[in-house]
Amino acid sequence: MTYLDGGVTGPRGFAAAGLSCGLKKDGAPDLALVFSESPAIAAGVFTTNKVKAAPVIVSREHLAAEYARAVVINSGNANACLGEQGLQDARAVAAKTAGLLQISPEEVLLGSTGVIGVPLPVGKILDALPALVNSLSPSGGAAARAIMTTDTRPKEWGRRLELGGGEVRIGGMAKGSGMINPKMATLLAVITTDARVERELLREALREVNALTFNRITVDGDTSTNDTVFLLANGRADAPPVTRGRNLDEFKAALYDVAAELAKMLVQDGEGATKFITVRVTGAATEEEAEVAARAVANSNLVKTAFFGEDANWGRILAAVGYSGIDFSPETTEISLGGLTVFKEGKGLEFSEEEAARILKAPEVEVVINLHRGAAEAGIWTCDLSYDYVRINASYRS
Amino acid sequence: MTYLDGGVTGPRGFAAAGLSCGLKKDGAPDLALVFSESPAIAAGVFTTNKVKAAPVIVSREHLAAEYARAVVINSGNANACLGEQGLQDARAVAAKTAGLLQISPEEVLLGSTGVIGVPLPVGKILDALPALVNSLSPSGGAAARAIMTTDTRPKEWGRRLELGGGEVRIGGMAKGSGMINPKMATLLAVITTDARVERELLREALREVNALTFNRITVDGDTSTNDTVFLLANGRADAPPVTRGRNLDEFKAALYDVAAELAKMLVQDGEGATKFITVRVTGAATEEEAEVAARAVANSNLVKTAFFGEDANWGRILAAVGYSGIDFSPETTEISLGGLTVFKEGKGLEFSEEEAARILKAPEVEVVINLHRGAAEAGIWTCDLSYDYVRINASYRS
Repeated sequence: MTYLDGGVTGPRGFAAAGLSCGLKKDGAPDLALVFSESPAIAAGVFTTNKVKAAPVIVSREHLAAEYARAVVINSGNANACLGEQGLQDARAVAAKTAGLLQISPEEVLLGSTGVIGVPLPVGKILDALPALVNSLSPSGGAAARAIMTTDTRPKEWGRRLELGGGEVRIGGMAKGSGMINPKMATLLAVITTDARVERELLREALREVNALTFNRITVDGDTSTNDTVFLLANGRADAPPVTRGRNLDEFKAALYDVAAELAKMLVQDGEGATKFITVRVTGAATEEEAEVAARAVANSNLVKTAFFGEDANWGRILAAVGYSGIDFSPETTEISLGGLTVFKEGKGLEFSEEEAARILKAPEVEVVINLHRGAAEAGIWTCDLSYDYVRINASYRS
Repeated sequence: MTYLDGGVTGPRGFAAAGLSCGLKKDGAPDLALVFSESPAIAAGVFTTNKVKAAPVIVSREHLAAEYARAVVINSGNANACLGEQGLQDARAVAAKTAGLLQISPEEVLLGSTGVIGVPLPVGKILDALPALVNSLSPSGGAAARAIMTTDTRPKEWGRRLELGGGEVRIGGMAKGSGMINPKMATLLAVITTDARVERELLREALREVNALTFNRITVDGDTSTNDTVFLLANGRADAPPVTRGRNLDEFKAALYDVAAELAKMLVQDGEGATKFITVRVTGAATEEEAEVAARAVANSNLVKTAFFGEDANWGRILAAVGYSGIDFSPETTEISLGGLTVFKEGKGLEFSEEEAARILKAPEVEVVINLHRGAAEAGIWTCDLSYDYVRINASYRS
């Protein structure tokens, strides 16, 4: 596997575009389009929130169609909690895009991100669609920027996979830095590939990879109404088809790499984040148990503020495992920060505060919690909780 | 019911004291003693965290004894996660206190609050106990101050209850403003009463009242290792005994009033709090469902930062109900802020931003979420999430 440039337009046969249609007050790009020159099969995973935004509802319907050709994403407005009007607006965007691209409306997938409950200024989107379609290019233009909200930078990643004498390419873009907590498909991401692969295998691959990547990150424990990950495969690669028992595992590994990298970028750019934290629970009886414990630690405001303060406060980590609901014994539990063991056999160890300070000053910190109960493990990626998280979220709507 | 001054020493036959024994760096009071002049029956509720501090373990053992006479609480150190040494230290404090008061060690209950995992400087406590016992007074001295950690003010409340021609008094003190999330007996609180009441009824009353008061508040969603509420009854009132079917309900109502007032004081003084927020879910199918939904909203960082920013961001409230896990329909749900309906029938309503600003600028805001599914309801008290929460918790241990 080697790096592939270009994000969603890295794989063969994809174009993209981004522009400003006026949804964002500051005039930044806010409308993106990803287009597959030939019919692509598609898979999607969506928020588990009971409150689902209109584009989520419409996209789920459209995924029943045989192919997908386009993904339209707007930022600046979530098109959520708007009743029938929201659905009508979403369908209008799909219909006009389809007309311009001469495809069917069911081949258009949708995503929206931004403030909830404010009517979508759909006229601005419809008016801008012709220019958006005209600016489609293999470079992708401003697509990755146009899906950003409180993100401070665009997120793209791609991989080349050598397969049977040919090459399969996978590329993606993602956005999201607040209201991020899985249990679901977090945030907005579009991943494209030129692999030749059957729909069922593509969906299986996305489901599995999503569970280990986008569903393993948390910024603030809040689950959005709009979270969506799309995966489109147009079969334009010069490599043999991806089939079970032959090269499916390699394809999944490359897809994992792209999704994991995008997921980590989201956390690194989490609202107000100054540090990237991996919480790994090992020695668990089951992977589920490990994930539950890791998630409790990763979502603890007290743990996150301690990391912001570069404070080796392992007591908060242990306390979070304690209220996570899993069965474990503090007496056999071991906690280390960046390789430095701070808690073992029921009590804290003497450790060098200097070494702890060195570890905690780094931009990335790994917490390992070994429960010594079994052989299963799971990790969650998260970030610290800083003043800027409060600043960003206290003033978001206005 | 009328107000009773004096906190834990308001009821007849109780004395208290507080002093500095050197656990807090700044020399503030950090050791408290509550003493019942005659044997009292006692009840306690404790943290549900799997990781339990030494004073919690020892106090649970001691509650098996027939009576309790004293409660010793230190701040500045949690005596948690310290293995066998922590238990030995806790027992040493109980033993020495018992010797000085000429009671049995099992009649001493313990509480600790502060940093986790740092060995308790038990020598400082043992050395200070004689002076603490000598300073016991009906005024209570600095007891309510000595149990504070990041609290900005002491919390005391009391009630006189007229009963059968006599008077029953109930008084309490509490501390805690971070690591507060029930599912359990939150924080540290001591409530005393001179009621004559059987142990089983006293425990039932505490269990029921705790579930509706201390277990209905949240500051940051973190559940401590040390949370404890003690209730001592010494029977010194000049009123008839509290018995089932006679005056138990009145006693519970007065106990509820004291516990609820203390619980609200904790939230009002929550770390960094600028606003007191009541999240009330009505029209639920069951009380449990209402509580789950209210708790999700009250624990949402996005909701709490929006309140700090005085932003009527009802979308975040609805999204939190959406991921709470309860079954409901956004189409029938109604949300109001301080009486102003902002969401109804699946979509946001036009509302006056000026009126919303007036409501959100107030120090207390009530959010009502009517699910229109049934007749059950539940409320959770919480506070907003501000810069100061981050400041306080980023620098707590050091």
